[in-house]
Amino acid sequence: MIATTPNISDILAAHARIKPFIHETPVFTSTSINEIAGADIYFKCENFQRVGAFKMRGATNAVLSLTDEERSRGVATHSSGNHAQALALAALQFGINAHIVMPTNSPAIKVNGVRDFGGKIYFCEPSLKDREETLDKVVKETGATFVHPYNDLKVIVGQATAAKELLDETGELDVVMCPVGGGGLLAGAALYVKGSYSATRVIGGEPKGADDAYRSLQSGKIEPVVNPKSIADGLLTSLGDKTFPIIKEHVDEIVTVTDEEIVGAMKVVWERLKVVVEPSAVVPFAALLKEKEKYYGQRVGIILTGGNIDVNNLPF
Amino acid sequence: MIATTPNISDILAAHARIKPFIHETPVFTSTSINEIAGADIYFKCENFQRVGAFKMRGATNAVLSLTDEERSRGVATHSSGNHAQALALAALQFGINAHIVMPTNSPAIKVNGVRDFGGKIYFCEPSLKDREETLDKVVKETGATFVHPYNDLKVIVGQATAAKELLDETGELDVVMCPVGGGGLLAGAALYVKGSYSATRVIGGEPKGADDAYRSLQSGKIEPVVNPKSIADGLLTSLGDKTFPIIKEHVDEIVTVTDEEIVGAMKVVWERLKVVVEPSAVVPFAALLKEKEKYYGQRVGIILTGGNIDVNNLPF
Repeated sequence: MIATTPNISDILAAHARIKPFIHETPVFTSTSINEIAGADIYFKCENFQRVGAFKMRGATNAVLSLTDEERSRGVATHSSGNHAQALALAALQFGINAHIVMPTNSPAIKVNGVRDFGGKIYFCEPSLKDREETLDKVVKETGATFVHPYNDLKVIVGQATAAKELLDETGELDVVMCPVGGGGLLAGAALYVKGSYSATRVIGGEPKGADDAYRSLQSGKIEPVVNPKSIADGLLTSLGDKTFPIIKEHVDEIVTVTDEEIVGAMKVVWERLKVVVEPSAVVPFAALLKEKEKYYGQRVGIILTGGNIDVNNLPF
Repeated sequence: MIATTPNISDILAAHARIKPFIHETPVFTSTSINEIAGADIYFKCENFQRVGAFKMRGATNAVLSLTDEERSRGVATHSSGNHAQALALAALQFGINAHIVMPTNSPAIKVNGVRDFGGKIYFCEPSLKDREETLDKVVKETGATFVHPYNDLKVIVGQATAAKELLDETGELDVVMCPVGGGGLLAGAALYVKGSYSATRVIGGEPKGADDAYRSLQSGKIEPVVNPKSIADGLLTSLGDKTFPIIKEHVDEIVTVTDEEIVGAMKVVWERLKVVVEPSAVVPFAALLKEKEKYYGQRVGIILTGGNIDVNNLPF
């Protein structure tokens, strides 16, 4: 159980716990991207993670942290995205039930992913209110443990292991960047990075059309986004009361980018790094390209968070 | 100098020679692709090779095999594709000139690639006759050594090193598959695979619209393709007098596939393996998917040959 703000030992314990059940993803570099960027970039390729996204880390840590009694009643969540698939697969491999509430407008590829992993799907209207109400009902009926996509310390600590593996491979970096939606990964990465190398800057990339983290850091309190809109469909959520305090304390800066900048960065990653990443994954790289001068000659780690995309529906 | 048909020692020597100048590319697997295919597939990811294609291997071996006197006069080739970029980069890093004849209809991304690596470009009409005439002129004027894209034993032996690295990682396989255009890679891979494990089948995948290898193996003599047409633009060439005899002796089968089958296989690789590959690269995987029953439960190595693609011009 993690009661207070997690620290490096919590993250190391989580890594030891989940390591047999996740992929240790590779760190890729590209001479031509480094030339374009004017920096040495280390891409942690979580698009190659199981279910195609870093979300497998937090979901696995949450499932492995359940008591036997909790396991018997299963897990539940609401998610239209990668967390849903991750929780379904994490549950499947330990033989427990996963109850997944998904909005009716979820991409078919993600609904099918959840179904393939044996998740029980409950459709709801695509509003946060309806998601939460449907989830409440499911939790009441089944007794399942709710595993929040990001506002959960076990999930945050699980996501942090991506930053740990990155730094294990690269050593000290000048900057570590990752996308921010609800802030699970950014909070976890910031805890690990600042706990390891206090001088390393931690920067979040966020879509302009869902800029709650940017505004929340400005005002000093959570400013939820209303009607978020971005091609980075994994980053439309707002910070929670678990992720915000950590981000406020440990993250140096949030940089926002337009959808056009996101698609431009995605094109560079696809064509030069030769890896399939989803729009949300390249948001921090787009932020770097937008203000190259801030990173000139530096060693920058970027977590490429996922690669789940429908190739029949590409922005190119 | 390789005078007669190369053997395993020639390939090992080539690997030792080029190793410091190429990437040792990873071998990827995917649980979901294995489920779709009903086989255990090991993808050798040469899309991550320098210049984005295995061609870097043969070009580097050819350049490193030149005498000092030959080096001073540079190298030349005609190619609209990855060989052109590979030869330009191989030449650049040893400080020698690369004279590249390219048809006027070459994709801009490939022309720019050659230019970025300092290659001197000579445009010609997009016919084999005009390519050869222009090249002859360039060779006469410069004294450069012609490095053929595939019909050259030093190139064949260089390409073979991709199969060596694959088998080093996987051990014995039931099948090794790669695409066939002019046959440099297929001939090299067949030499290495059969020299290492005589029971391993070696299978070439070829586009139906450029099926000269298929027909040549049927008739027993080179049957050049006339007006080839396929989305697999790296495989439009015909076998040469160096590649054909090796393929005839060591390759078990050529399987042809339609452009539709190629695009279908490409979709699976992009969405499941999360790697960017060009159409030519997935031709053998398309061949496997077409006749799954032949590979059921077997261990199959597939060389994903390249990932150079213009994302603004995708077949999805």
